[in-house]
Amino acid sequence: MTIDGTQEAPRDCALDGQLPFDVFARNCPSRDTLGHVTGRWGSLTLGALREDTLRFNELRRRVEGVSEKMLSQTLHALERDGLVHREAQPTNPPRVDYRLTPLGQDITKRLMGLIDLVEARMPDVLAARKSYDGGR
Amino acid sequence: MTIDGTQEAPRDCALDGQLPFDVFARNCPSRDTLGHVTGRWGSLTLGALREDTLRFNELRRRVEGVSEKMLSQTLHALERDGLVHREAQPTNPPRVDYRLTPLGQDITKRLMGLIDLVEARMPDVLAARKSYDGGR
Repeated sequence: MTIDGTQEAPRDCALDGQLPFDVFARNCPSRDTLGHVTGRWGSLTLGALREDTLRFNELRRRVEGVSEKMLSQTLHALERDGLVHREAQPTNPPRVDYRLTPLGQDITKRLMGLIDLVEARMPDVLAARKSYDGGR
Repeated sequence: MTIDGTQEAPRDCALDGQLPFDVFARNCPSRDTLGHVTGRWGSLTLGALREDTLRFNELRRRVEGVSEKMLSQTLHALERDGLVHREAQPTNPPRVDYRLTPLGQDITKRLMGLIDLVEARMPDVLAARKSYDGGR
């Protein structure tokens, strides 16, 4: 990094198989996947699937506030990244189940570690907000 | 959760100090904080600060692709949540340093655990994408 404010060369990432993947690099595909995992609806969808196979409408109820369209887009992105498995059941009426893949389970475990910590530390966060809002 | 598709009552969260914070509840403030931590620019900003105190322009270079306005908004939200400390140095020209608070360090540690895993598993993600795109 330059001290004088001049632009650094953009980082490279593992597209040629030589360098590690790097979310700090602008064009690294790992940045998209991190976004799918940690985006508002992506994170809640993975979290909702951590224990259960769920149907679309079950997921929609579990993830309060998500629209049908956003949940559908979220599930497509997670399925394409190999984190969620979609299975159409040959029932009448037809039914579609969603569950985490083994990769999705690994990643969701880490994600839940983060979510659990954020929830646990919310009293500190709210105290900080109160002090910030009062001090300005 | 109801099986027949009727609406469940919205979840409650710890606003009255009785229930735990719950990111799955629509109005829980933990959902906002999770969004600040895991949003595209929030996660990269916390990650960039995990080892160093950085100035605004240093941060901007480290988090490739972020605009001045987005970085400024991101830092304000993280500061208000008590995750980032902002310190104006009495130098000439004036200089503003940003660093993680102890709470920010705890949360960033979990976040980096997730980021490291996503980066490490990108070969699997890219293989899944290839298979998904080829199979449709």
